[in-house]
Amino acid sequence: MYDLIILGGGPAGLTAAAYALHKRLETLVITQDLGGKTSLRFHAPWLEGHELLSGVELVNRFKSQLEYLEFVHELDRAVQVVRNDRTFSVRTEKQKQFEARALIVATGTTAKRLAVPGERELLGRGISYSAVSHAPLFIDRQVALIGQGTRALYAAAELALVAKGLVLILPDPKDVEAPLAKKLAENPKVKVLSGFQISEIVERDRFITGIALRHNGTSRGFEIEGLFVEMGTTPNSQMVAGLVEFDAENRIVVNARMATNCPGLFAAGDVTNTVAEQVLVAIGDGAKAALNVYEYLLGRITV
Amino acid sequence: MYDLIILGGGPAGLTAAAYALHKRLETLVITQDLGGKTSLRFHAPWLEGHELLSGVELVNRFKSQLEYLEFVHELDRAVQVVRNDRTFSVRTEKQKQFEARALIVATGTTAKRLAVPGERELLGRGISYSAVSHAPLFIDRQVALIGQGTRALYAAAELALVAKGLVLILPDPKDVEAPLAKKLAENPKVKVLSGFQISEIVERDRFITGIALRHNGTSRGFEIEGLFVEMGTTPNSQMVAGLVEFDAENRIVVNARMATNCPGLFAAGDVTNTVAEQVLVAIGDGAKAALNVYEYLLGRITV
Repeated sequence: MYDLIILGGGPAGLTAAAYALHKRLETLVITQDLGGKTSLRFHAPWLEGHELLSGVELVNRFKSQLEYLEFVHELDRAVQVVRNDRTFSVRTEKQKQFEARALIVATGTTAKRLAVPGERELLGRGISYSAVSHAPLFIDRQVALIGQGTRALYAAAELALVAKGLVLILPDPKDVEAPLAKKLAENPKVKVLSGFQISEIVERDRFITGIALRHNGTSRGFEIEGLFVEMGTTPNSQMVAGLVEFDAENRIVVNARMATNCPGLFAAGDVTNTVAEQVLVAIGDGAKAALNVYEYLLGRITV
Repeated sequence: MYDLIILGGGPAGLTAAAYALHKRLETLVITQDLGGKTSLRFHAPWLEGHELLSGVELVNRFKSQLEYLEFVHELDRAVQVVRNDRTFSVRTEKQKQFEARALIVATGTTAKRLAVPGERELLGRGISYSAVSHAPLFIDRQVALIGQGTRALYAAAELALVAKGLVLILPDPKDVEAPLAKKLAENPKVKVLSGFQISEIVERDRFITGIALRHNGTSRGFEIEGLFVEMGTTPNSQMVAGLVEFDAENRIVVNARMATNCPGLFAAGDVTNTVAEQVLVAIGDGAKAALNVYEYLLGRITV
């Protein structure tokens, strides 16, 4: 029986683990890999090992600590969480089962892919799924963004501020009618294309250099140095479905203390409805979740 | 007219400023000093410049950036905030006035003092107002804690885990009846004293070495290496009183996106009801507040 099981080993999960260990809680982290998305460095020909993500060094320190403490982590994936009387049972992909008095879900999100050849190989080599993280690497560069929904338009607005030129591809014609899309279309740096899909990704020396688009038999080609895919993200929350409140997009609803509506079950990072795609936010929320688990367990002692 | 005014220059305010500048918002930080409580290093004879606070390097980086950008900060204190039609006016102690479209309050808290001679001089030299921050510096040391309320008892529980011995001074006899206090009294490392007050602080070479207590004519003396004062904290929120919702302790109530119930007014750090006294939490919440201000202002553009 553990005091705390943490699902996920990205910035939120690793920080929560560091704090929980610091508070001397019996802790287990169940994760497929340590470091999460911060393990993916972003490369571009004009960047020389430069990394803009504030907080990555901190995450790496927590990661090293956990790598060293082998008994604290399981390289596995939680498949289902069951709530018992006053504990939680976690069943994993490798058919193991673990129990704890409290739980932090920090399993992040999975970005929706385009399923175009070359997409996977060029990830982090010109292709990004997070404009909020990588837009500042593309100052005065030619970029394209394909996406749908409000977050995609916000991302486009951010890119329009910094990039030399932006090809904004909106497969869903509804998005073109949004006020922000109309505003963007007035910007001379931005070219809005409605209904198009990406049919081909062009590369040279393993960096993206262009895209081909297609729509109703029409083809277009663009030279670009960066492609942002903002088709939405899916929170990795299935293992607690039915146990805690989700928002309309299946993100775990937390309050300002990272508690869910299920006592003893906390969540942090992008799997929650406070999704920010920011390392520092995930770190802060991970710390907060662990501190509140600690208080929750202290309170339980006194009951 | 600024896009954003940030009140406070501690970890939350500095991180919010770094993010806001990164997003190219016209930003002003109004603060009496840059760095907040992280500027106070904690010294003890057995620590050689060792600092345990994760995140302090990050705060220092943000601080240097802001020191350099003179036009982005005013060394002053906000006295009152007025909400106009779609903007906020901030009046300062130096009788200046500034306007912005959005506001982040990150003014922190002020710890209640004991008002015992020597207390101010030994702050950070054996005396701490935050067990949650400094307890890990006192592993296997003899310490005392004077405090009241639930947070003081939580702090005592944490110290009892790591310290060699703990003198727990509870001036308010009601606190002795709390379940956690009773639990602590059973721990052989903990000595609980009810009703006593600290009458004298003893020092040698500018480090605390002991305390004298008094209660109804009875005196007691203890040799200690650390004194934790947990008499409560007062949030520095007066300048927005009446404008936003406060909790019962006058902390600003925020949701998981750091928004208050007043549109355009956000808050972060220990001045909020998510008070954690943790640099990493303040950093994360500061980043979150700035990102949500950015989205708020983007939304406003499109209206």
